[in-house]
Amino acid sequence: MDTWNHISPKARIGADVEIGFGVRIYDNVEIGSGSKIADHCVIGYPTSRPDLAGKPLEIGCNANIRSHSVLYESSAIGAGLETGHHVVIREGTKAGQHLRVGNFSDIEGDCCIGDFCRFHGYVHVGKGSQIGHFVWLFSLVTLTNDPLPPSRLAIPVEVQDGAVLAVGVTPLPGTRIGKGAFIAANSQVSGRIPAGALWHSGKVRCGVHRMVNIEEGLQHPWMSHYKDAFPENSWERIDALLAEVEAASRKV
Amino acid sequence: MDTWNHISPKARIGADVEIGFGVRIYDNVEIGSGSKIADHCVIGYPTSRPDLAGKPLEIGCNANIRSHSVLYESSAIGAGLETGHHVVIREGTKAGQHLRVGNFSDIEGDCCIGDFCRFHGYVHVGKGSQIGHFVWLFSLVTLTNDPLPPSRLAIPVEVQDGAVLAVGVTPLPGTRIGKGAFIAANSQVSGRIPAGALWHSGKVRCGVHRMVNIEEGLQHPWMSHYKDAFPENSWERIDALLAEVEAASRKV
Amino acid sequence: MDTWNHISPKARIGADVEIGFGVRIYDNVEIGSGSKIADHCVIGYPTSRPDLAGKPLEIGCNANIRSHSVLYESSAIGAGLETGHHVVIREGTKAGQHLRVGNFSDIEGDCCIGDFCRFHGYVHVGKGSQIGHFVWLFSLVTLTNDPLPPSRLAIPVEVQDGAVLAVGVTPLPGTRIGKGAFIAANSQVSGRIPAGALWHSGKVRCGVHRMVNIEEGLQHPWMSHYKDAFPENSWERIDALLAEVEAASRKV
Repeated sequence: MDTWNHISPKARIGADVEIGFGVRIYDNVEIGSGSKIADHCVIGYPTSRPDLAGKPLEIGCNANIRSHSVLYESSAIGAGLETGHHVVIREGTKAGQHLRVGNFSDIEGDCCIGDFCRFHGYVHVGKGSQIGHFVWLFSLVTLTNDPLPPSRLAIPVEVQDGAVLAVGVTPLPGTRIGKGAFIAANSQVSGRIPAGALWHSGKVRCGVHRMVNIEEGLQHPWMSHYKDAFPENSWERIDALLAEVEAASRKV
Repeated sequence: MDTWNHISPKARIGADVEIGFGVRIYDNVEIGSGSKIADHCVIGYPTSRPDLAGKPLEIGCNANIRSHSVLYESSAIGAGLETGHHVVIREGTKAGQHLRVGNFSDIEGDCCIGDFCRFHGYVHVGKGSQIGHFVWLFSLVTLTNDPLPPSRLAIPVEVQDGAVLAVGVTPLPGTRIGKGAFIAANSQVSGRIPAGALWHSGKVRCGVHRMVNIEEGLQHPWMSHYKDAFPENSWERIDALLAEVEAASRKV
Repeated sequence: MDTWNHISPKARIGADVEIGFGVRIYDNVEIGSGSKIADHCVIGYPTSRPDLAGKPLEIGCNANIRSHSVLYESSAIGAGLETGHHVVIREGTKAGQHLRVGNFSDIEGDCCIGDFCRFHGYVHVGKGSQIGHFVWLFSLVTLTNDPLPPSRLAIPVEVQDGAVLAVGVTPLPGTRIGKGAFIAANSQVSGRIPAGALWHSGKVRCGVHRMVNIEEGLQHPWMSHYKDAFPENSWERIDALLAEVEAASRKV
């Protein structure tokens, strides 16, 4: 141990991994090459759950984990992870490639997250949530799971590919949000939201293709004009998703 | 001082206390035996308030303080404290035993919290709040206190034993929530909420015993089916509270 | 480097600067005299934006930066900065004197903030926001900027001098809030809000002078009774702003 980091010699750290100041890495960690772990992060934090304790935390290549973040043991996260500052990702999280998680967000574990998802700040992914690919969760989105709080019941939320939850959305337990659906800011949403639907002010209003910005000539689904925010190797998948959501939107 | 922690020799630290990496403990701290203080915590942070500066922070036995948490001097917290990551507890907090505080929560001090309370993430307990025993504050609950913001006026919120504030609830200044009442998700609530009442969509609707989960045969008050989430030595108190809330609920 | 801090010898640190434990200060930082930087802060965090990388972070005199805060390079913040714990201030922020930013708040950069602004906890200042002097943002206020999320469009929010956004307010992209206006708790607000106006339940209701606390004889605009929360050298400016907001309020 050098004097300002505390890296377990048992951790398996790939080539060209850059480690900041005040970083702790526990035993049971595997980090892909080309990653950056910034100051004051804690990687491989021990779980208190006997069913998951001792299982590894696997982080893919080229991760960029910003300062003061905490990632638990017993999770697997694909290549290209990018976290903000002060992020918490708990045990039992399975996430695909190119996940981005904003400042102060909290992924509570036992959940499944697809590829290329982007979460902004203060996002709370409740335990057990099921999240597809290319999903957007904006600031303060809270995925709940207890239908009769407090209880032991847990009916997690499902958010399908390409769906967008704007600032402050709260899906109630058991909500299923279809592909490419859009939930307007500060909505409380429940039930099954069809693919391609726009939900605001308490119900489904129309297809998302009705959401336009006239000045700039932009229109939902977002994949029609925002594909280039993602790496080129994802574009074929985005195009296929766009076609599917567009068709669904016109049927809403 | 070893090279990776900064523990004051004046701090009174009980037997079998486990201290992580990058922990700072100031002079004026007393920590009960069997506690754990995880990486990058700051314990006994100095207050800038002259009336409270220099008074001790007392933490009971068997605390589990997760990483990056900050606890100020001049507070007293009972045995069995459990914090999430990145929690802040400020000066002048008096809390009973078995308090749980989730990730990114902030207790602003000068407040009184009973035994066995559970707060989830991003909970903000405004200065001066009065909170009973067995109270549940879910994510993003914000207890306000200024009736004419910004001003020097302060009319804190009171939450009585066994009450439940669901995700995103904002009690306005001076709100008093009676025993075992339930405030539905994302409500803004004010005034006096009777014991055993369910508040949603802007008013009291019925007694909490009307809140049921038919599939599982569960019903509020929550103490009727969730007692075992607490240690056995609390069950007698929970039973007494249940009887009281049930009776109140049927009178709402 | 001593063993518990990591201070670049290139950083320009003024006289009588107090530095805590576990602090990292990068090369490109200038900190005014009399400042305090508490435990586990990271000052001058490198940006990944090529247009801003390598530009300095300038912090004025007498700053008080509380623990676990992260300030990026390429920002300029006036004298008397005060942050809570776990605060993030990103690149391209220009802020005046005596800014206060509460726990867990996030200033996303490329924004302009006047003098004597006060932000409480969990405040999110979206990229590009324009904020005047003496502005109050209470907990969970989120300044958005994308009118068709997700997209590359950005129409930031403008909040003019002396305006007050109560707990949980979300101004939608392009909102302009006039001088001394008051936005009630948990409102979603959009469009142009006139100076001195009170907005609640979806629209402008009256002038802010109608907001009173009868028991204490207090009345908005807040500058009429809360001037003494600011240093005396600001009082002339507050008086002038009060006169302007009072006049505007009576015309709403």
